[in-house]
Amino acid sequence: MPCCSKNTNVRVSLPAVCFVWQIAMIVLFGVFVRYDKESDAHWVELKKTENLTDLDNEFYFRYPSFQDVHVMIFVGFGFLMTFLKRYSFSAVGFNFLIAAFGLQWALLMQGWFHHFDYSTGKIYIGIESMINADFCCAGSLIAYGAILGKVSPVQLMVVTLFGVTLFAVEEFIILDLFHCRDAGGAMVIHCFGGYYGLAISWVLYRPNLHRSKRLNGSVYQSDLFAMIGTLFLWMFWPSFNSAIANHGEGQHRTAMNTYIALASSVLTTVAISSMSKKGGKLDMVHIQNATLAGGVAMGTAAELMITPYGSLIVGFCIGIISTFGYLYITPFLEERFKLQDTCGIHNLHAVPGMLGGFTGAIVAATASESVYSKEGLIATFDFTGKFENRSPGTQGGFQAAGVCVAMAFGLVGGAIVGFILKFPIWGDAADDNCFDDEAYWELPEEEETIPPVLEYNNHMTQQKHRET
Amino acid sequence: MPCCSKNTNVRVSLPAVCFVWQIAMIVLFGVFVRYDKESDAHWVELKKTENLTDLDNEFYFRYPSFQDVHVMIFVGFGFLMTFLKRYSFSAVGFNFLIAAFGLQWALLMQGWFHHFDYSTGKIYIGIESMINADFCCAGSLIAYGAILGKVSPVQLMVVTLFGVTLFAVEEFIILDLFHCRDAGGAMVIHCFGGYYGLAISWVLYRPNLHRSKRLNGSVYQSDLFAMIGTLFLWMFWPSFNSAIANHGEGQHRTAMNTYIALASSVLTTVAISSMSKKGGKLDMVHIQNATLAGGVAMGTAAELMITPYGSLIVGFCIGIISTFGYLYITPFLEERFKLQDTCGIHNLHAVPGMLGGFTGAIVAATASESVYSKEGLIATFDFTGKFENRSPGTQGGFQAAGVCVAMAFGLVGGAIVGFILKFPIWGDAADDNCFDDEAYWELPEEEETIPPVLEYNNHMTQQKHRET
Amino acid sequence: MPCCSKNTNVRVSLPAVCFVWQIAMIVLFGVFVRYDKESDAHWVELKKTENLTDLDNEFYFRYPSFQDVHVMIFVGFGFLMTFLKRYSFSAVGFNFLIAAFGLQWALLMQGWFHHFDYSTGKIYIGIESMINADFCCAGSLIAYGAILGKVSPVQLMVVTLFGVTLFAVEEFIILDLFHCRDAGGAMVIHCFGGYYGLAISWVLYRPNLHRSKRLNGSVYQSDLFAMIGTLFLWMFWPSFNSAIANHGEGQHRTAMNTYIALASSVLTTVAISSMSKKGGKLDMVHIQNATLAGGVAMGTAAELMITPYGSLIVGFCIGIISTFGYLYITPFLEERFKLQDTCGIHNLHAVPGMLGGFTGAIVAATASESVYSKEGLIATFDFTGKFENRSPGTQGGFQAAGVCVAMAFGLVGGAIVGFILKFPIWGDAADDNCFDDEAYWELPEEEETIPPVLEYNNHMTQQKHRET
Repeated sequence: MPCCSKNTNVRVSLPAVCFVWQIAMIVLFGVFVRYDKESDAHWVELKKTENLTDLDNEFYFRYPSFQDVHVMIFVGFGFLMTFLKRYSFSAVGFNFLIAAFGLQWALLMQGWFHHFDYSTGKIYIGIESMINADFCCAGSLIAYGAILGKVSPVQLMVVTLFGVTLFAVEEFIILDLFHCRDAGGAMVIHCFGGYYGLAISWVLYRPNLHRSKRLNGSVYQSDLFAMIGTLFLWMFWPSFNSAIANHGEGQHRTAMNTYIALASSVLTTVAISSMSKKGGKLDMVHIQNATLAGGVAMGTAAELMITPYGSLIVGFCIGIISTFGYLYITPFLEERFKLQDTCGIHNLHAVPGMLGGFTGAIVAATASESVYSKEGLIATFDFTGKFENRSPGTQGGFQAAGVCVAMAFGLVGGAIVGFILKFPIWGDAADDNCFDDEAYWELPEEEETIPPVLEYNNHMTQQKHRET
Repeated sequence: MPCCSKNTNVRVSLPAVCFVWQIAMIVLFGVFVRYDKESDAHWVELKKTENLTDLDNEFYFRYPSFQDVHVMIFVGFGFLMTFLKRYSFSAVGFNFLIAAFGLQWALLMQGWFHHFDYSTGKIYIGIESMINADFCCAGSLIAYGAILGKVSPVQLMVVTLFGVTLFAVEEFIILDLFHCRDAGGAMVIHCFGGYYGLAISWVLYRPNLHRSKRLNGSVYQSDLFAMIGTLFLWMFWPSFNSAIANHGEGQHRTAMNTYIALASSVLTTVAISSMSKKGGKLDMVHIQNATLAGGVAMGTAAELMITPYGSLIVGFCIGIISTFGYLYITPFLEERFKLQDTCGIHNLHAVPGMLGGFTGAIVAATASESVYSKEGLIATFDFTGKFENRSPGTQGGFQAAGVCVAMAFGLVGGAIVGFILKFPIWGDAADDNCFDDEAYWELPEEEETIPPVLEYNNHMTQQKHRET
Repeated sequence: MPCCSKNTNVRVSLPAVCFVWQIAMIVLFGVFVRYDKESDAHWVELKKTENLTDLDNEFYFRYPSFQDVHVMIFVGFGFLMTFLKRYSFSAVGFNFLIAAFGLQWALLMQGWFHHFDYSTGKIYIGIESMINADFCCAGSLIAYGAILGKVSPVQLMVVTLFGVTLFAVEEFIILDLFHCRDAGGAMVIHCFGGYYGLAISWVLYRPNLHRSKRLNGSVYQSDLFAMIGTLFLWMFWPSFNSAIANHGEGQHRTAMNTYIALASSVLTTVAISSMSKKGGKLDMVHIQNATLAGGVAMGTAAELMITPYGSLIVGFCIGIISTFGYLYITPFLEERFKLQDTCGIHNLHAVPGMLGGFTGAIVAATASESVYSKEGLIATFDFTGKFENRSPGTQGGFQAAGVCVAMAFGLVGGAIVGFILKFPIWGDAADDNCFDDEAYWELPEEEETIPPVLEYNNHMTQQKHRET
């Protein structure tokens, strides 16, 4: 068993990475990051000069949505991945670790690319930066889904470092250069994150992963914990898509379209799941995941005038596609393409994100003044400044190009990061030791029936007997 | 055992219902549903003509409350019902399914009855429609509590289809025709939903349900999962009651009254629960349920000037009544009236909803200009238009009549739906197979002590040995 | 075994305390508590006379933050303490009970000390009172962490009664007399609550607690439930610190500083946890607790212009300090000072709260007009009225004095309450019966593998066999 030479001891590498990177964050924040004008104490004066009220502070437009997004990142993604019977600590714990690191790095990367003030050499951050930082982490957390159970926390930190970096660049190209609309990040978050994770997982293919098969599955309780993640993601997805949409009708419509599409994808997920199994029994994997595809697929189009029934149709189709993915495509990819995708992010993020991007392109291309009103069209697509004369058709073309950029960044970037992670220095587990918290966590003793006091000694003897 | 001929195979019926109803939703949404003016892109122009600011968009008044309500519907109701030891998948999963269907049907039904624009033939939806749709689902989810563990998902879809329909009609009578105030739905949601579920359960009486007795109970972990549901319901109930209350002081007062009443009902629930058991031990059933009765009972009155100590008194009394219900009335109803009420919705929704309705009637009847101010009275009860000259006394009378309408719709509607559900085509389980996820879910293998790698083969042998 | 004479029967005392105190609340609310002007129906008229809009109602500035704080109090604190293998019902259930009582008593106590209107003899409450009442409970819930598993619910009610009372007094001294800033309560909540709990636990020292050692630990599932608590606390801490900060930039900056500091403390917690164990394995106790220290330590300074990198540094240091506390100081205190601190609140609340208070003092002392702007400085520190001429340096001195007051109240108050709790009338468990829900809860039967119907009888025999 050559694989057993693998060493999961991260006692030096994990603290080293955490300390070095956190100190780097402090230094870089010290050099670059300052409060923006709406979170700076000077705002009290600005308010007077510009005749503003307290409520004009961006905080009140965005904070409730921010908190919903924050719950999705930490409880949603974290608990969704607790479905494995003995990897729940790592699912929720490493998700916590890498999101907490990722959001700091994201504040810097996104700041440099989007909000850098050349006159002062500073980045100014506020509530919108916080939402965008959470979004930026989401890309790497999605990638974690593909490699769940097969990598060490140190590798995850590397995945996040590069993931956030790549994210900031592709986002700059798609949103700033191409001037795409992507409020909920179907392209920049889900499509990118999905293919990024798949490419990493493909490079890290483990031919003997079947040796850990006994742990690659759920138990009753772990499936219930995962449902906590599913539901918080599902419920708050309208906030995810609308968090940085335009004030007023923009946020309003985005939230409503997402709400409607998500409802629709639940019904088709249940339908396909039931059809596929003997006796019409439902599969928790589908309910936990494919029900969410409606939110992903509306990531771009929810902000647009897709109409309520258009949202229903998107949810209808993507629920079917995603569930079929879990039934047939994930096993197919594993067998034929040697692609091991623990959480099936191919079906929940990569494909729905890609299709959501193209849906957005089509809806954008068919936008018209009669539907949006003249000013509504300008406001929705931000046809101002150097984009003043862009037509909806051109916009649609750029949106479609944006999807391709996101895929390309995910696939190429993921392949490169995958090769970096193949160095035998990162402390990942051997093939017969995957999906096991034992490698990285001090686990509590197994739960036994708690013995009553009087039988305590007796029980201790029994236990010892059993252990021998 | 004649009951064993029952067939829980829903492989045809469940997908059929999901597909047909979802397609119907798409068609009906296509014909009828459009964005309202505050979620339509034209709002950008309207904002200019009417000199509005972004914050005047209804979205900012309602969205945080909507998200809290949304959590109550999906996590609150869903996890509250996970207390059964082997029915947690169905509790949270079918709750998810029927709420996702119900809210779509509710948008249509409530739209036709309340927001139909005869000039265009369309329904215009926005954030308030989303809250109302979630409310409308709540009625059917409450009904699910009474029949939990005894029906198939297909039957639940039928319960929801009729539940939402009946809800829209009784709500139209109570709120529009009678012009009642019922911000938190003590009457229209809880009283209706409670009696609707009880009537269905009464018709579906299973004389041999004791055969499933081994599964009709909780285990330690399932009770903890249920507490997640309880707490999210409890914490967000102030948002539930205030979500569609009047802007400003209306929402403010409603939330505060509910908050106070809920705190009070916790203490009396604990007191009665402790008094009733040997050694003063608390019963989780009471803590999970009766603590919430304060929110239900304030559903109507919270919006009114009931005073803070009035709210405390309501919580005080209803905590006692609800806990007594769990102790004595539910067993009595089962023995004498052949009414099997799995979650005890009689004590949490039906009775507190009814009493809450009457409380509201009394508080409304005693309203005066000295307490509300002249304009406050008009604003609170919406004494405008053709109700301009209604007196508080008359209002109280109509409120009381509203409670009766809600009960009548629940009881009669539930009885009819119950008879429909008796047809032997719906795939419900046999009497000795109730409260079991096995019937409708692919269950993971039982959790065993996870064996270490080296003892793997050895363990497999043991397991086989045990199974034989 | 003399301790076995202890009687955990609370069948008389618990209902008596609940009823008497709840009735007292009703009477006192009746005499003293009324709606404030923004939740009273008269506001409809006030709005017209003062030319206000609906959005000027304080409700819209505070309600989303209130709901986040509410979740932290009930789900956050409640589930954080479920980590013990057989004390989860008590953790979440008694937390529920005492918070529900505490908030009522807090509305009164804080009302008398801060909002009493001498002209009418009334207290006027609104949304800010609700937030402050939740905050006030937090002090007692923190104290519960130190004595978790060792006290009866009746004792907890006493702890809360005195805890809320002491809180209101120290808060009056610190915030009103000393005119300190402490938006997130590093001093008044965490430092006070921490030392209050430690002093109680010190007085209640149980020399034979090792007899319950078998139950003083976690199991896999209970650690996961605790992570629900951890994450909801961690995610919503920005709301906790900003809930009653100044409108506009105040809330904005406070939330952002807290968000940044919390992220930083996650990384150093992981680093120290990994360094301290063989193989670099992480300890769930650290992840569940020390990650939160960043929020506590920012309780005072988050409102000030500490700068983003300053927040990172605070989080960095406190993560290290808190984790070291769990590793070395808690065991040291138990051995040398006979201080049994079940949840380690010394490391999560007492020390980070104290250090957070001093951090705030330093940041306040170094405040300048160049950083805050003239009006910003006045607004941030409320240098108005009789404090018009206070300098930042003086403010810093008073802030430091405030920390000492909070500690003194906690230590002295806790010692007194501890002695009260030593009377043998409160129904606490014997030393060999601690950390066990059995004492106060009707527990469901142990979970066994659910037998299929046909093997039911067979299984029953087996079970009996096993039990003998």
